[in-house]
Amino acid sequence: MQETRLDTHRIRAARRVIDPVFLDTPLYRCEALEPDLGCAVSIKLETANPVRSFKGRGTEVVASLLADKGPRAVVCASAGNLGQALAWSGRGRGLDVTVVASRFAPAAKLDRIRALDARLELVDGDFDMARERAAAMARHDGIRLVEDSLDIETCEGAATIGLELVDTGRSFDAVLIALGGGALATGVGHVVKALAPDVEVICVQPLGAPAMTHSWRQRRVVTTDSTDTIADGVAGRCPIPAVLDDLLLVADDAVLVQESSIIAGMRMLLHHAGLVVEPSAALGIAAILEDRDRFAGRHVVTIVCGSNVDVGAYHRWLGTAPA
Amino acid sequence: MQETRLDTHRIRAARRVIDPVFLDTPLYRCEALEPDLGCAVSIKLETANPVRSFKGRGTEVVASLLADKGPRAVVCASAGNLGQALAWSGRGRGLDVTVVASRFAPAAKLDRIRALDARLELVDGDFDMARERAAAMARHDGIRLVEDSLDIETCEGAATIGLELVDTGRSFDAVLIALGGGALATGVGHVVKALAPDVEVICVQPLGAPAMTHSWRQRRVVTTDSTDTIADGVAGRCPIPAVLDDLLLVADDAVLVQESSIIAGMRMLLHHAGLVVEPSAALGIAAILEDRDRFAGRHVVTIVCGSNVDVGAYHRWLGTAPA
Repeated sequence: MQETRLDTHRIRAARRVIDPVFLDTPLYRCEALEPDLGCAVSIKLETANPVRSFKGRGTEVVASLLADKGPRAVVCASAGNLGQALAWSGRGRGLDVTVVASRFAPAAKLDRIRALDARLELVDGDFDMARERAAAMARHDGIRLVEDSLDIETCEGAATIGLELVDTGRSFDAVLIALGGGALATGVGHVVKALAPDVEVICVQPLGAPAMTHSWRQRRVVTTDSTDTIADGVAGRCPIPAVLDDLLLVADDAVLVQESSIIAGMRMLLHHAGLVVEPSAALGIAAILEDRDRFAGRHVVTIVCGSNVDVGAYHRWLGTAPA
Repeated sequence: MQETRLDTHRIRAARRVIDPVFLDTPLYRCEALEPDLGCAVSIKLETANPVRSFKGRGTEVVASLLADKGPRAVVCASAGNLGQALAWSGRGRGLDVTVVASRFAPAAKLDRIRALDARLELVDGDFDMARERAAAMARHDGIRLVEDSLDIETCEGAATIGLELVDTGRSFDAVLIALGGGALATGVGHVVKALAPDVEVICVQPLGAPAMTHSWRQRRVVTTDSTDTIADGVAGRCPIPAVLDDLLLVADDAVLVQESSIIAGMRMLLHHAGLVVEPSAALGIAAILEDRDRFAGRHVVTIVCGSNVDVGAYHRWLGTAPA
């Protein structure tokens, strides 16, 4: 494998600064899903922690570095999960955290960011407009900008999931990874390709937010004018060049799935696994549903990466509603 | 503490025969629950494993002993979770597992028992009738009867949860434990009272299935003629004397909660923690809801012990239904 920006030794070191509450998350076969999917499915569950997503792994690394020697004030743009995680990690270390988010982000995510004592600034636009605003604030106020997927610590934190997958010693054939900005995909992908290269690394993105997948396929940054998906956690328009470079080295494939498949995946995870998940966390199941032949008889791990969802929207998507 | 049937060294040894997929489960503060509850709440999550309840810990101990030197055929009565767990543990060790359950048990539990290759026998009555039938089968067929809560291995398995609570070194003031047959309460209670005696051990049972709580309060076995609760996992009528003896030594309190509080607890766990749980797993939250003053300002751990629920019934209880 050509070298990505990541380094396996640094990823192992990252484990030592991450609060254990985010580490060694459940990994288990979910046989109840298997008759409908036609393959063996294991779940890596990243929702049973104080911020209900995998993002705490990365923000712990970011915040521990800043607490040691960096500035005390940080700002990040977030679709909601990074902001919540940075607020959690920053609060514990006395950092002054500002989160910039879209005012269209799920209320559940925005409420939790506020509850964790972060300053929340909303933009009247999407995630990439929040990114622009956060960068402008950092320049103007001279405070530290944390950029998800670009800042290597966010990738290293996510990559610790990969260590946990390969260190179990259990064999699997493919890992399905939600693809948004790319921290999760490049982090986990790096570790898998470095330590278990036979395992297929498959990134999954909604058809309605395909910028990174198109970029991966064309091997150059492709942006889109808008996004149209319920998977708010991965709805970006502007891939980061350095992250794309890493993704090109570690991803075996990047696939796009329909909204209806995401909803079907959420429904299956509820009915057969007892899991409430946010749309981004159902992308892996959606990918299997759209290409059962590809996965038939294989053992697939899907990373259930977040469960921060507005319950009302969740019921609407699944066709349930208050009686 | 007077001696229960349990032994802390044996409980530590039990960890070595339990499949790691059941061990070291998530334990985390859930601050989103706290404004409504008025106390600090940590969740010990026992649902992210192949059988979606804590029962695998005990059946792993049972099955490993039988696989070593016992008979190859076993029968148990189950409200659904023990049977599923024994089927899982037995299948992996070549045991021939029969589960006797009530035909009124949740379909989700019965379906999973069948799917795990166990023989399922249904009785036209409740859990205690299933117990009688399983005992009769064991006598008649000369096969090994596994009795939940009476067989010490089921308690030792459950007790490993207690080890994980005290071994974290994090401080908490009380642990809320669903009380049914008593394996979970006596197991966790033994460890907590042995290793962290200042922590209050509070058992919680539905008002509609109060036999063990009445027995604990009167210090003698009290049976009831029937049960009336949605918390199928803890709906027993006939406490086991030896288990009551242990419970009298380790429980600081046993409280009864209303059905409406159980439903409110399930709703809170969905809305604020993103967790779908079966009614028994919401007993702890229900207990806080019914006595906020008692817990005000304290740090409480609640064991979320299972998530095997029929989704249709779950929606009915929470007032959501297919649109």
